Amino acid sequence: MPEIRQNIATKEWVVISTERAKRPEDFKSTKEKRTLSEISEKCPFCPGNEHMTPYETYVVKDEFNKWKIRVIPNKYPAVVQEGTVEYRSEGIKRCVSGVGTAEVIIESNKHNDILPLMPEKDIEQIIKVYKERYIAAEKDKRIKMIIIFKNYGEQAGASIEHPHSQLIAIPVVPFHIRYRIEEAMRYYDETGECVFCKMLNEELRYQERIVVETGHFVSFVPYAALAPFHMWVLPRRHMESFGDINDNEITDLAKNLKITLSKLYIGLDNPDYNYVIRSVPVNEKGKEYYHWYITIMPRLTKTAGFEIGTGMSINSSLPENDAKFLREIKVR
Amino acid sequence: MPEIRQNIATKEWVVISTERAKRPEDFKSTKEKRTLSEISEKCPFCPGNEHMTPYETYVVKDEFNKWKIRVIPNKYPAVVQEGTVEYRSEGIKRCVSGVGTAEVIIESNKHNDILPLMPEKDIEQIIKVYKERYIAAEKDKRIKMIIIFKNYGEQAGASIEHPHSQLIAIPVVPFHIRYRIEEAMRYYDETGECVFCKMLNEELRYQERIVVETGHFVSFVPYAALAPFHMWVLPRRHMESFGDINDNEITDLAKNLKITLSKLYIGLDNPDYNYVIRSVPVNEKGKEYYHWYITIMPRLTKTAGFEIGTGMSINSSLPENDAKFLREIKVR
Repeated sequence: MPEIRQNIATKEWVVISTERAKRPEDFKSTKEKRTLSEISEKCPFCPGNEHMTPYETYVVKDEFNKWKIRVIPNKYPAVVQEGTVEYRSEGIKRCVSGVGTAEVIIESNKHNDILPLMPEKDIEQIIKVYKERYIAAEKDKRIKMIIIFKNYGEQAGASIEHPHSQLIAIPVVPFHIRYRIEEAMRYYDETGECVFCKMLNEELRYQERIVVETGHFVSFVPYAALAPFHMWVLPRRHMESFGDINDNEITDLAKNLKITLSKLYIGLDNPDYNYVIRSVPVNEKGKEYYHWYITIMPRLTKTAGFEIGTGMSINSSLPENDAKFLREIKVR
Repeated sequence: MPEIRQNIATKEWVVISTERAKRPEDFKSTKEKRTLSEISEKCPFCPGNEHMTPYETYVVKDEFNKWKIRVIPNKYPAVVQEGTVEYRSEGIKRCVSGVGTAEVIIESNKHNDILPLMPEKDIEQIIKVYKERYIAAEKDKRIKMIIIFKNYGEQAGASIEHPHSQLIAIPVVPFHIRYRIEEAMRYYDETGECVFCKMLNEELRYQERIVVETGHFVSFVPYAALAPFHMWVLPRRHMESFGDINDNEITDLAKNLKITLSKLYIGLDNPDYNYVIRSVPVNEKGKEYYHWYITIMPRLTKTAGFEIGTGMSINSSLPENDAKFLREIKVR
């Protein structure tokens, strides 16, 4: 019989559909294999085409004084830098001005670099830039929420191949986040525990859904994974804000991410995916009960009417099987 | 400056991204045009292949005693018919047994029929079957929530071309629905009004986002539309449950749906879409403040990391422009 599982932290329900169950191999990416060159003439993110993008807000250089990582304002920003936050309400029309930060983090000067195949040191550098930009965005008094994410591949909504991620900082806290925080608070008030720490400890005890354990981070397929190979990467240390990650943890996160994403890359033949750093709203630190983490969502299936209508998911893959499959993938 | 709009009823936020704005024409479907034949030999939903599907639970016949609409149990059901509802909770593992109903409504005996191009009378018949099956599912004491939806096209998650829709009845009320009901209750308690009636009245007053008005239904692009050409089809009469729709309303809904979907079909070159009937949870009638409606979601853009991380949407099209574009499309 199928199980309808609930994530204890987010309260999200997912139908684990054993009747539709597929083998992990069935999810292998079937996208056309293309060999990219190191430089693409038309790519706005490639060295030599810097004039095609807005001027950089941050840059990391290599030993030859050439840029390795470049942060630029998004040329087509979801929210714009200039302006004040104004709430308007007139009948059914409620809105806030779309001010904030929309940045692109160009992760490499090579058009054909692929994150999990990059040296650990380079991934570490990218995470350092994430932290740097997170803290810079936090200083803007208009900002309530900062999202750092990567869209990899067309199915994940990426329009440019050159390796990059994004930071978007917005002047509202969406209810999706409020709801999670409230649930975490309720759990904390009832049990005295952080629900994310609880989840991590239990997953470590069960072991069956663990994918990669490193010194400071653990990646696992959650018990109520929303889709095939959906993973969480959780810091072992209880901290609510990504901005609080320290240098040792950054080094370790680079290691964990490299192995975790390599397993996806090898095991599922380079699938499209999103990852998102989920942190606490910026002006609301001091929430003992919240815990930041990274969610990795391979885009192997399509959401449809059921998901739109219920906010639930149907996962046609058993989380325990997905984790076992990934654990068995050898990296290097 | 972009606006971040909020839907007054659902509290969903959406960034109306004027910087990324496209013209309605830019959303035209670019999918390969294929001519389908009236019968497909391999299609399990075509006449002659009835043995490829489970035995029908409901059927509508034509004057020659051949089936016109066939309802069958889903061969790969998300939830299964047999079993009792059992809640289990052990540490972080919480689940409910996946029992319920999963039916497929085969809308036509022609493989190449397209809903908006079908005669109004046939669409009316399909909606009558929706109501019939909704009421049948409601009688099952294990059921808490019934979703009727249509996935049209690959981008919308459809795996079979033959025109069909689905009914899934589940033994839980997801928080996504709870949240909407709570918000509607709060609005009702504060103002004495149904927030959906309020929205309908205001949209009718503004007129700028209205797409099609018929006697009993109004289709419009919501002020905070989640994606380009996202529409709501709302009954003018205040009623919480789709099961309460009467015959006159069914006739009128067929008319409205036909025109509304035809405008999408003509204006955007047969785009993929989902529609979902959003009704109140089944054991919770008597909610004065809730109002059922249909949401139509063309699948023209991809959700990405921002949407996963915030639960918000970025809409690169202005709802007022989308509505104007659709109003100007001539049907028949």
